[in-house]
Amino acid sequence: MPEFFHVLPPAAARALLFEHLAWRTPAETIATAQAPGRVTATPIFAPHALPTFRRSTMDGYAVRAADTHGASGALPALLQVVGEVPMGQPAALALRPGQAVIVHTGGMLPHSADAVVQVEHTQPAGAQEIEVVRAVAAGQNVLQVGEDVAQGAQILPAGHVLRPQDLGGLLALGLTEVVVAQRPRVAILATGDEVVPPDAPAGPGQIRDINSYTVAGQVQQAGGLPCLGGILPDHLPALQEAAAVALAGSDMLVMSAGSSVSVRDMTVQVIDGLGSPGVLLHGVATRPGKPTIVGVVQGKPVLGLPGNPVSAMIQFDMFGVPAIYRLQGAAQTPRRAVVYARLAHNLASETGREDYVPTRLEETAEGLVARPVFGKSNLIYTLVHADGLIKIPLNKGGIPAGELVEVRLF
Amino acid sequence: MPEFFHVLPPAAARALLFEHLAWRTPAETIATAQAPGRVTATPIFAPHALPTFRRSTMDGYAVRAADTHGASGALPALLQVVGEVPMGQPAALALRPGQAVIVHTGGMLPHSADAVVQVEHTQPAGAQEIEVVRAVAAGQNVLQVGEDVAQGAQILPAGHVLRPQDLGGLLALGLTEVVVAQRPRVAILATGDEVVPPDAPAGPGQIRDINSYTVAGQVQQAGGLPCLGGILPDHLPALQEAAAVALAGSDMLVMSAGSSVSVRDMTVQVIDGLGSPGVLLHGVATRPGKPTIVGVVQGKPVLGLPGNPVSAMIQFDMFGVPAIYRLQGAAQTPRRAVVYARLAHNLASETGREDYVPTRLEETAEGLVARPVFGKSNLIYTLVHADGLIKIPLNKGGIPAGELVEVRLF
Repeated sequence: MPEFFHVLPPAAARALLFEHLAWRTPAETIATAQAPGRVTATPIFAPHALPTFRRSTMDGYAVRAADTHGASGALPALLQVVGEVPMGQPAALALRPGQAVIVHTGGMLPHSADAVVQVEHTQPAGAQEIEVVRAVAAGQNVLQVGEDVAQGAQILPAGHVLRPQDLGGLLALGLTEVVVAQRPRVAILATGDEVVPPDAPAGPGQIRDINSYTVAGQVQQAGGLPCLGGILPDHLPALQEAAAVALAGSDMLVMSAGSSVSVRDMTVQVIDGLGSPGVLLHGVATRPGKPTIVGVVQGKPVLGLPGNPVSAMIQFDMFGVPAIYRLQGAAQTPRRAVVYARLAHNLASETGREDYVPTRLEETAEGLVARPVFGKSNLIYTLVHADGLIKIPLNKGGIPAGELVEVRLF
Repeated sequence: MPEFFHVLPPAAARALLFEHLAWRTPAETIATAQAPGRVTATPIFAPHALPTFRRSTMDGYAVRAADTHGASGALPALLQVVGEVPMGQPAALALRPGQAVIVHTGGMLPHSADAVVQVEHTQPAGAQEIEVVRAVAAGQNVLQVGEDVAQGAQILPAGHVLRPQDLGGLLALGLTEVVVAQRPRVAILATGDEVVPPDAPAGPGQIRDINSYTVAGQVQQAGGLPCLGGILPDHLPALQEAAAVALAGSDMLVMSAGSSVSVRDMTVQVIDGLGSPGVLLHGVATRPGKPTIVGVVQGKPVLGLPGNPVSAMIQFDMFGVPAIYRLQGAAQTPRRAVVYARLAHNLASETGREDYVPTRLEETAEGLVARPVFGKSNLIYTLVHADGLIKIPLNKGGIPAGELVEVRLF
């Protein structure tokens, strides 16, 4: 491990993790309707064109465009109405020159029609006749076969995170099942002689385990399956055995590495003992969260998070969330919501370090204002009281009040 | 209805909906660990202070700060080490002047200590003695009782959408259950003689139902429970009966109002027939999605969405998603992710109308570029191929290429 022991900026640290993260969850076939948030395991191709027939985009009359040539209010074109295309039925009617048929939005065009005159551009002229007061070009107000998607076209690549509209695109083509990557199982182990479960009374010197649950919430939000492994004492053999079992049964292992140096050193030992390459780096150039441990074993990510709850959440967002998507073969991690706001106070930082400052957002007459929530990273309520995080980039020594800052909603 | 019939800008239309939307889902008690995304039904207060005991934020020595007064490398303070506070245990030791005890990060401070000297600022001096080379002030490197949250403080208001850190804040206080609003049940009815289920072959003139599923996906993303009511023919009595049953059994009703004027008129009739006040407005100053029908019956929202899949999704995001949060008493709708990008092409619009243009995002050397995906709003693949939507505000006649635009990830 010692040769890897250095503090990297977050982007370089993530790149190092991804370089070694070879594990992928296997594919499974699920109902398309149940697939929002899942990641495609294969490229998907259109089994047929969409639309499958020429459709009207207006309420009006299907016509031969040539019959409306030059039509205007002063010189309307007179057409004979020979029928109506019922919705959901083939357009069986044949148009001869000078004829029109009633068609509704979404209705099928008869074979011999090539355009639709919208009803607002017509006026009745006798029982079975209309006057067209504006000419249409061939193809006007018509969706052509394959205009949405062509037969055989790749409609989605592998590694695509499915959104509601993607489900719509698949179902429109009758693709009621989709092959996706299985959701990664993320084993979470809490460690610490001082840590008790949330439903236990916490006596003097004891604190309740919250990192297991905040990280589990983050895992769920990212589409993973959290598997809580409970709380372990700071005892090397017990930790080693629990970590090995947890890693074997999951796709990622997260350990709450504690806050004291001795416990962090023990976590490094445990991760290195699990297999190769083990710990990749111990220390990220961020505040909070510097003492994060990032490793890979059997191609799977293994993280040792700081014990401080704020650090743990920020670091899991930095490494754990992208890893959950990567394990499913996703091309990229979906972007977090950001807003821009004016900074209410000066913020100090150090160049060479990326800072994340919990902040409230306030709507004011002058726009959105970011008001930092000050407090130590041991204090979970700095994040509870915050709407997001201000990121102070590596190369900045601080940000003056009044500057426009990016706030990542968190 | 006629007196309501006018086209409103989106914000005014949403305000009108909210004015009439009196229905709220009842409260229920659930496990805190299962509560991400749920909305608090009551304010929540801290049953005790946090931390409950004074904790060290460093590995080092608990001391009386006065004993380190004036200490420096040249003139260190000599202290006798009289023990160690074990993690997770009460700090039973009493310090006399000139004494120190070993304490770990997160460990409890003995009653008679008031600061912690970090280990890096000490050096060993004999078997049971250390030299302190930097003075500490009273309270330094110590988390005080109640520094995170005071006993009795309101920790969360009612109407708060719970995030992972909120779960952490609750569990840290032993609050393993939380009272939240029930998830709204959203009934979705598809209508149209031309619409068939996604697993059916779609013959000439027929299309598969996708709006039920795209909207269901949006409902799920917003924390609601979609209840699919199937596909109904364009037949007034059948629609009226199905809508009444669906509304009675749910907290919100969404009807795919179709694209032709006659079907939209029928939807208006159905909603007005359900009860008072019925349709509030028919028409929103947006493109796509102008012919949206917004109503309220028995205090519950009832929406008639355009048949075009792109319009339906954009309009559901505009009215349905905020309504889902409002039904749970949420103070506001969580913000959508936005990014800023340079526009690749000129975009035309009309003042007085809010336009939403599907767009791809491309990472370039000059930063993010927004490349609009052109296509009719009948084409679901314009949204499948897009990463988000560019919003052209009401008061803009268009946007020139090269301008920085806000892209809402969608």
